[in-house]
Order: sequence, then C-alpha cells, then structure tokens
Amino acid sequence: MGIVVQKYGGSSLADADAIKRVARRIVDVKKSGHDVVVAVSAMGDTTDDLLDLANGVSPLPPAREMDMLLTAGERISMSLVAMAISDLGFTARSFTGSQAGVITDSVHGKAKIIDVTPGRITQAIGEGHIVIVAGFQGVSQDTKEITTLGRGGTDTTAVALAAALEADVCEIYTDVDGVFTADPRIVPTARKLDQVSYEEMLELAACGAKILHLRCVEYGRRYGIPIHVRSSFSQLHGTWVVNDPAAASEGETMEQPIIAGVAHDRSEAKITVVGVPDKVGEAARIFEALADAQINLDMIVQNVSAAATSLTDISFTLPRTDGQTAMTALARIQAEVGYDKLLYDDKIGKVSLIGAGMRSHPGITSKFFGALASAGVNIGMISTSEIRISVVVDENAVDDAVRATHTAFDLDADEVEAVVYGGTGR
Amino acid sequence: MGIVVQKYGGSSLADADAIKRVARRIVDVKKSGHDVVVAVSAMGDTTDDLLDLANGVSPLPPAREMDMLLTAGERISMSLVAMAISDLGFTARSFTGSQAGVITDSVHGKAKIIDVTPGRITQAIGEGHIVIVAGFQGVSQDTKEITTLGRGGTDTTAVALAAALEADVCEIYTDVDGVFTADPRIVPTARKLDQVSYEEMLELAACGAKILHLRCVEYGRRYGIPIHVRSSFSQLHGTWVVNDPAAASEGETMEQPIIAGVAHDRSEAKITVVGVPDKVGEAARIFEALADAQINLDMIVQNVSAAATSLTDISFTLPRTDGQTAMTALARIQAEVGYDKLLYDDKIGKVSLIGAGMRSHPGITSKFFGALASAGVNIGMISTSEIRISVVVDENAVDDAVRATHTAFDLDADEVEAVVYGGTGR
Repeated sequence: MGIVVQKYGGSSLADADAIKRVARRIVDVKKSGHDVVVAVSAMGDTTDDLLDLANGVSPLPPAREMDMLLTAGERISMSLVAMAISDLGFTARSFTGSQAGVITDSVHGKAKIIDVTPGRITQAIGEGHIVIVAGFQGVSQDTKEITTLGRGGTDTTAVALAAALEADVCEIYTDVDGVFTADPRIVPTARKLDQVSYEEMLELAACGAKILHLRCVEYGRRYGIPIHVRSSFSQLHGTWVVNDPAAASEGETMEQPIIAGVAHDRSEAKITVVGVPDKVGEAARIFEALADAQINLDMIVQNVSAAATSLTDISFTLPRTDGQTAMTALARIQAEVGYDKLLYDDKIGKVSLIGAGMRSHPGITSKFFGALASAGVNIGMISTSEIRISVVVDENAVDDAVRATHTAFDLDADEVEAVVYGGTGR
Repeated sequence: MGIVVQKYGGSSLADADAIKRVARRIVDVKKSGHDVVVAVSAMGDTTDDLLDLANGVSPLPPAREMDMLLTAGERISMSLVAMAISDLGFTARSFTGSQAGVITDSVHGKAKIIDVTPGRITQAIGEGHIVIVAGFQGVSQDTKEITTLGRGGTDTTAVALAAALEADVCEIYTDVDGVFTADPRIVPTARKLDQVSYEEMLELAACGAKILHLRCVEYGRRYGIPIHVRSSFSQLHGTWVVNDPAAASEGETMEQPIIAGVAHDRSEAKITVVGVPDKVGEAARIFEALADAQINLDMIVQNVSAAATSLTDISFTLPRTDGQTAMTALARIQAEVGYDKLLYDDKIGKVSLIGAGMRSHPGITSKFFGALASAGVNIGMISTSEIRISVVVDENAVDDAVRATHTAFDLDADEVEAVVYGGTGR
C-alpha cells in the first residue's frame, strides 16, 4: 500500500469537533494500510484574526514579519490535529513547512515552491507515524527565511508533497462534494464531475472556479499526481483530476463530455484606453507600464482602428484589487503615448465555457452566444483558447448567463446533487 | 555602545497598544546608540487560549505536539513587535528560538538550554536591525525538535542571549517596578531594592518571589550578566541583580542591608510519612521512590525517633501539583518500607527571611521566631541555609507572618513605594 497525501482546509478544521472528525478520517486511512501525510491550513478564522492583530500595530507591516505571523496559524492547527490523532491511539508527528523541507523562493506572501526535501517526513513514516505538515508555508532557499505561498497555498503544499513522496493520490478535502459543472449556488441542478482533465481544471480554476487553485493543478499536471477533490463532511467520492479522463475510465471513451463546465468570475475589472495612436510600439508601451507595476492582465482586446482617425481603443481585464495601481501607472504615460482617455469599469463579470471536447466539435461558440442572446445577455468582450470560450458581461447578468449556458449544453442533472456542508460555524 | 538585551512578558504585550508602547521603548534604546535584542513572551492570554484548544481535542496531548502548539504564541507576539517597530521607521527582524540558535536538551515542556549559537542574530545586528527573539522556546540538539523551556522560560532566554552576545545588561521588563522587600500586596510599605546579589535573588526566587525565575538568575550568575528588573509601564530604575551589590555601589559598603527581603510561597504541600522503622536505608528508599517519580522536594525534616518504638516520622514539602503523584508513589512502597501511614496537608504556606548579611550577624533566627511568636504564628517546619531561614506555617497565617517579620527587621518604607501597573487588561 502506498502513501496517501491529504489536504484539509480551514473550514474542515473550524473547531475542536471538526478537528476530531478529521483525525478519525485520517486514522481510517492509516488503518486501511496506507501511510498518510496530511497538509493542513489554519483553523477557520485564525488567519483573519492574525491579520486583524497585524493591522492593529501597523498599517503596512513588512512582508517578512507578516509571513512569520501568519505561519503561526498552521502551526496551531497541525499540532491540534496531531494531538487528536494521538488521542485515537495512533502516533502523529507535525512538521512546519521548513521542517518538512518545503523549499521556496524568497518572495514573501506569494513564494513559489522550488523543491521539497522530505527527509524528516520519510523518516517519520518509516517509524510508523502519521505525518501532519503545515500547509501554505516554506523556507526560502537562499536566505532561510520563513515564507508563505499565498492563496491556495495549502493545496499546493499537498500536491508538492505528493509529488516528492511519490504518493498514490493527493486528496483535497473541502466543504463541497467535488467539482461541479457550475457553481451550485447559481445553478442548483449543476452536476458533480466524476473526472476532469488537468487541462480543463486549469481553465476552470483560471476562470473563477475557486475549488482548486491554479498552481496546485499545474503542480499536479507536471508531476502526474492524481488529485481527488472531495468533501470532508461526507464519505462520497468526489472529482478526480487526472491526465486523460477518457483513457482512465476504460471502455467509456465515448462518454467523454464535450463540456466540463461553466465557470464565472466577478473579481475582475475592465480598463479601456481610448484613442491610442495606431502605430508600432504604442500598445507595447502601455503593457510595459502595466508589467512594471506587477499587474497580471487577463483578457486583452484591441479593435481595428477607425480608418478616418488612425486611433484605436485597447481594453483589458485585470483583478479589481489591482485597478487603482493600473490606472495610476497608465495616467503617468498619457503624454508619452498620447492616448485620449481611460475608462474604468468594475461592474463586470466573466463567464467561461470549458471543455477539452470542444476542440473537435464545431458550433460550440455559436451555441454559446445563442444561449446568451436568448437570455438577453449582452457580450462586452470575447476571448478564447483551444478548450475555453470566455465572455465579459454586465455584473448583474452573470447568473442568467451561467444558467442559460448550463442548460443549452445539457449539463443540468435530473435532481439536485450539490450539498452545502459546514454551514454552521462558517 | 554595547548590546542591550531586553525581555518583555505577556502582561507588557497584552494588546496592540501595549505592543506599540513596547516598540517605542525599544526604539528609544536603539536611538541612544545601543544595539538591541529583545526576547518576548506570548501576548497576554494567548498561552491559556492555546491550552484550551489542546484540551478541546485531547485530555492528554503528547508533549512534543504541545510544544509545537505553544510556540505559536511567541511567534505571533514577536512578529507583531517587529511590525510595530517597523511602523516607527526602524527595521526589525524576528527570529524563532530555533532560528536564534537556542539549543536545548530534548525534554519537551521543560527543556534546558545547552548552548546559544546566535549567528543569525549577530548578522542581523551587523546589518543594523533590531532583533526580536521568541522567548520560552528552542530546538533540541539531537533530534532537532521544537522544545519549550517551561515556567520563566522567556527570562531564561533573555539572559542566555545576553551571555552569548556578551551584552552589557539584560533588562527584564515586568509589571512591577522591581524586586521588593516583600510582596506589596501583603506589605504595602515594602521597599524596592535598588540592588540585590545573585545569591539572594536565587533564594528569593526559590522561596516564592515570582518576579524572576530561578533558572534565569542561575544563568545570570554563571555568566556574570547584570540583570535589571524594571517596569515596562514606567521609566523608573528598577532593581539590579549583580554579583556583589556592596562592591558595585562604591563607597556604600557600610550600607549593605542585612536582610534583602521576606518571601512567601503558597504553592507547596506537606507530606508526612508516619512510623518509619528507624534503620539504615529506609529513608533512602522513600526518597528514591520520589525521585523515580520525578518529584522535586523542597524542605525535608526527620525527627529523632521515639526511643521506645524505634520509629521515626519523615516530613517534606513539595509542589502541590505533584502531591497526588507523590502519594501514589509512596503508597506503592508501604509494604516494603513498613511505615505506618501517610499524612497529606496542602493548607500550608512557607515564609522565608533572606539576606546575605545574616551570615555575619548572629541573632537573626531568634529575632525572626520572636516576631512570629508575637504575631501568634505557629511554626510547623524549619529549614535554613547560610543566607536564608524558612518556616512552614498555616496557610492562613502567611500574611501575618510576612508583615510581622518585615516590620521586625525594619524593612518598612516611610511611604508606599509600590505601584501596580497594567491593571486594566490583565
């Protein structure tokens, strides 16, 4: 029997009872003959509480010290999980990111994992212990400073551990039953996907499905780690994220769905640079300024210039949280670039249709746009990849757009499948 | 200008305002030209909160995981102090016990410091930073496990850092103005001591004065680190714990007081083993059993045996928290030793008179006992060292005994000197 890596998030570790439940689940896997390595997030509201403390002493705390502070959260949860396991008669050893050999770069607050050297973990496994590892954190290669991995960090920790330990599977426990064809809060008849490819999951994550973080899926794909997304509140099978779902389920190749799901995202804003002189290098200057300000753009659209004026408009979307920074950076180069004005719109939403099957099926785009038109939804921007079509719509039209698309592609289940767990303390 | 090491306890770090006040105090020392290294405890009630969490998941948590949990407390406070310093325009680096090179043995929950290898601290000092170190914690030499130092651990961390860094002084900040001739809550006219010898401070600490922990004073004496005990709530000079107070204050040798103070302790219990056969080896067997149970005894008294019976009684005091363990250990050897019965009394208190001057002044004992008699206090047990006389009295007689002794030795100040700070949040 091989190694099973599990990840439990904050909502699965909300209080003492939740921790005991997680401990029982871990022990069950150990009893079944597997070695178990568990990555944990901070308990429920711990991170928010720590952020409040930081804000109480400094409006702009140094990133190094912020990482030092926040990493206390997983330290608390991991030792409590180890204690709860010990109370069930099994031995557990908790390790910080640093002790677990999670080596990162030096970018505090959003460090990237460079390597995992799990010597202490394999030794503890060899001694028969269950291993609990603090998620979301590591130690920098050069400076030996404590770092955090940013959003979705514990998912990434879990997959990185699974890769380093050559685990059979990485189980990501969350408060929903798996990956759905759409957000069940918007589409009650959304279906749980039994399997989804890394490629589709990457697009889903990038397009606003919050269930798995992009970096975690990227890590899983690179090392070929099967990821099982499931609920810590039930015993149901969840969604397997694997290399090629069709090949994995032998004899079912015909059944690979064309569309994996409909994702949506209300966290972006749109900026339009109006009246950009249509000559070589102007667009480059604009995107250079945005890159210098460390802003990640998403969709970019440039219309053909009106022949009469030789001026063009450039629109792009970006995280709303970067909106002010981007506007400031662009204002600074107005004279240099000679554009007319800037428009800022944060009342937008993005709706994306994702499916590896659309590669070989023509007509997907027209069906998608037809569904939106029937629902009375106006399309603001369009962007496509080989397995994805995204549109920007009015923020208030997102729900209608998601529902219309979901129905148009026959994704609705016969009955409501989604259950929302853990509703009490969270 | 040399290095100043400071220690701030939990009551000095109760909330954001307290942390900002501590930061200003630290920055003031840095501005005066000193390098500053600060050891901090966990904030106010953090440790209790963490203990509650542990009790919530396991009635008997493994010591290793308990240390992992509790060390989160100083991690939080040290990063917050560093942030508050940064907010004042100075740079600070916080380090865990492990990062700071606090090397200990492997006894979780009460590890002893073996060595301090402060490479990262000296490097940070060299780069101009103020250094904040997590008190109370270290890393074990052999197993590289996180350990805690037990009660008074942060004081010990501070003095150990001062020794390793060859600091000019170790300032222990607390919520009283210094070391007093008696507990000001019992004796309002108690006087603050300007200076006290390591030797006297050791006896004071051992006899119940809670202001400095025994191990901290021992460490200071061994390495000759001047310890300045003072309040974080005022700018007053506190009490200097030094090698030879008389020699230190030149020209004032004649003024060295005979008595440093009166200490009391209500944390002990008394066990009497009644009817022990008065022959070789019986007492040894009793104390062997107690040592095997890891119990530290304080006072031990054996009366001469009644000639008629050849039986003797052995009484000793010990921490009340060890009472049950000791009784169990002794009950187990009753048949072997052949004693009659065990008596347990936890309604006792210990009052101690301490002063290096009593070495050369006869008549101290009779004056002490005379004061107790005048106050109507009955003496249960007596124990003495070269610079201390301790008596066990009824728990309810402790206050009267302390006051009577304090007055008899002319220790009362003309006016009330003691101020109790930080009364709000604590």
